[in-house]
Amino acid sequence: MKPKHTSISKIGEFGLIERLKNKCNELRLSEKITDQIILGIDDDTAITRPSPGMLQLSTSDLLIEGVHFDLTYTSMKHLGWKLMVVNLSDIAAMGGVPVYALITIALPAKISVEMVDDLYEGILHAAQTYGCAIIGGDTNTSIGNTMVSAMITGEVPDRFLKRRNGAKPEDLICVSGNLGLSHAGLQILLREKKRFLDSQQQSEFKSELSEYTTAVTKHLAPKARFDISMTAAQQEWVHAMIDISDGLASDLRHICKQSGTGALLFEEKLSIDPLVEKIANQFGESALDYVLFGGEEYELLFTIDPEFESKLSKQMPDIRIIGQITEEKDDIALIQSDGSKRTIVSGGYDHFKKE
Amino acid sequence: MKPKHTSISKIGEFGLIERLKNKCNELRLSEKITDQIILGIDDDTAITRPSPGMLQLSTSDLLIEGVHFDLTYTSMKHLGWKLMVVNLSDIAAMGGVPVYALITIALPAKISVEMVDDLYEGILHAAQTYGCAIIGGDTNTSIGNTMVSAMITGEVPDRFLKRRNGAKPEDLICVSGNLGLSHAGLQILLREKKRFLDSQQQSEFKSELSEYTTAVTKHLAPKARFDISMTAAQQEWVHAMIDISDGLASDLRHICKQSGTGALLFEEKLSIDPLVEKIANQFGESALDYVLFGGEEYELLFTIDPEFESKLSKQMPDIRIIGQITEEKDDIALIQSDGSKRTIVSGGYDHFKKE
Repeated sequence: MKPKHTSISKIGEFGLIERLKNKCNELRLSEKITDQIILGIDDDTAITRPSPGMLQLSTSDLLIEGVHFDLTYTSMKHLGWKLMVVNLSDIAAMGGVPVYALITIALPAKISVEMVDDLYEGILHAAQTYGCAIIGGDTNTSIGNTMVSAMITGEVPDRFLKRRNGAKPEDLICVSGNLGLSHAGLQILLREKKRFLDSQQQSEFKSELSEYTTAVTKHLAPKARFDISMTAAQQEWVHAMIDISDGLASDLRHICKQSGTGALLFEEKLSIDPLVEKIANQFGESALDYVLFGGEEYELLFTIDPEFESKLSKQMPDIRIIGQITEEKDDIALIQSDGSKRTIVSGGYDHFKKE
Repeated sequence: MKPKHTSISKIGEFGLIERLKNKCNELRLSEKITDQIILGIDDDTAITRPSPGMLQLSTSDLLIEGVHFDLTYTSMKHLGWKLMVVNLSDIAAMGGVPVYALITIALPAKISVEMVDDLYEGILHAAQTYGCAIIGGDTNTSIGNTMVSAMITGEVPDRFLKRRNGAKPEDLICVSGNLGLSHAGLQILLREKKRFLDSQQQSEFKSELSEYTTAVTKHLAPKARFDISMTAAQQEWVHAMIDISDGLASDLRHICKQSGTGALLFEEKLSIDPLVEKIANQFGESALDYVLFGGEEYELLFTIDPEFESKLSKQMPDIRIIGQITEEKDDIALIQSDGSKRTIVSGGYDHFKKE
């Protein structure tokens, strides 16, 4: 009898994760251990309490060549930096600060020692910038592609912890930075890669990136927004927080799902960056879609008590209010510029679902 | 100008790790963070102190298809179990107990949902057996091979911590279990794989493993020796401890290097398992080499104060004394059955060096 074979693309990444979560939650463990675990496998970041008063945050992310990055246009330095930032951003989103990281890498024969040096230059630059020790990991050969993975542990005092499940109806939805830039930058990089591969004289190829630097940099070397998160963490009136890795719509959905709320976004408040507009136009695509669904932004999305709007503008002047939390469970919609309402359906990027 | 390209095989895995360690140790971090880090990147397992009195242990290992495992003869259940054990064994070696794990996997399209279920059955069986929560991780598609990685955090009270650097001249060298079985089992599996691939009628192929079960099981589903480690951790007279993942000679070298000692092993005390003898004979190889250099044993190697030999035999009757620590720095030798001395040179398995 042939064993059953259900393709993962059939249930999708989120389906698979759901399935695995349920299994993991069935473990029967000692009270000593379960008492330490405040939030387990139900989030990008786990919360544990090794000692009273302080919470520990643990997160891990793996980047795979051909899936998450392309060495044609990603330097090893940028890769190392971004590996750290995608994990650090998860720590920031909970209001925490990093403590240490474990780095695990798998390297095919084409990767030279100098390339590994460059990778670590990026990793260490991020570690130094955000104050995170590198305390271990694992280094391996790969017969396939390059893979780099980091596990970062951070900490946060109990009272500063922010989670996805704290949003309340009437809360204002706030976001840092300009959204859509990372996806726009990726589009430009993919176009330049194609131009390079199509060019007759590859050795003389010159990429045309100068007008798109902001977008390309945002994609290749995003920042972890501790500048915002550490202020936000200290405000009781910040109710829920997440970082935007899957895209605004998708990550807002995480907040709504866990808080039992809905959300309204206002198109006119989204104020699309002119560069996003310009790039989307070049590809004949919707800049608004870039803003709503573009992933890998690593900006912070959080909700605040509406009574504290004036405090927000004083303490975090660069944050924009783009919408409001509603009571309508899981109903996420956009109020368009003409006043009409458009339900936002997409769940963002899914690694396993075929597009 | 072409960038410099030094092949990693030129400096080897240990050379690469040394290089990366040095870089990581150059980070300048706040006292708050450095105070928490007792042992950083210089070991398989990092030691941190999030709170007074208790130490936290963190380790991570990545298993890659084609490098560390072969799905021809490794079931997904065994793979999941072993992924946990290789990490848990690192926690055991420090005298700790596990608390939680993050699991990161990269799956190519050929892997079905049922196979992931099986993988997790193995992971969870180990988690349940050894009392470890699964609190997160990352799940990805891979365009290359299957990769599975775990980061496990454990804890140990300060007074029970065992490290590699505690061995003293005159200490007796102790080992759990029978060495060489894992490598012997691997040899059998590789032979059966070849028989299968060479067979005319693959659908009717029957593997011949029954006489080799102990060895094959040791390779595919090793145990983490908490039964020994938890007793050993509580004895002050246990001075240094490590788990045997690279091989007896190589892991003993780790202890000697970090303790500033040498070691003598006694061939007659190694008492080679008859099955190891039998299998090595079939391949025309030396059973002693299997014992000295065979990796992936996950048995415990530790040194004890010689005055407590009788306590050892009472409290850990299954442990064998196989040698003695000496003052001769880094000099590791075998006293052969005929009384002659053979220096042990090999450094064990290196992922990057060409054999």
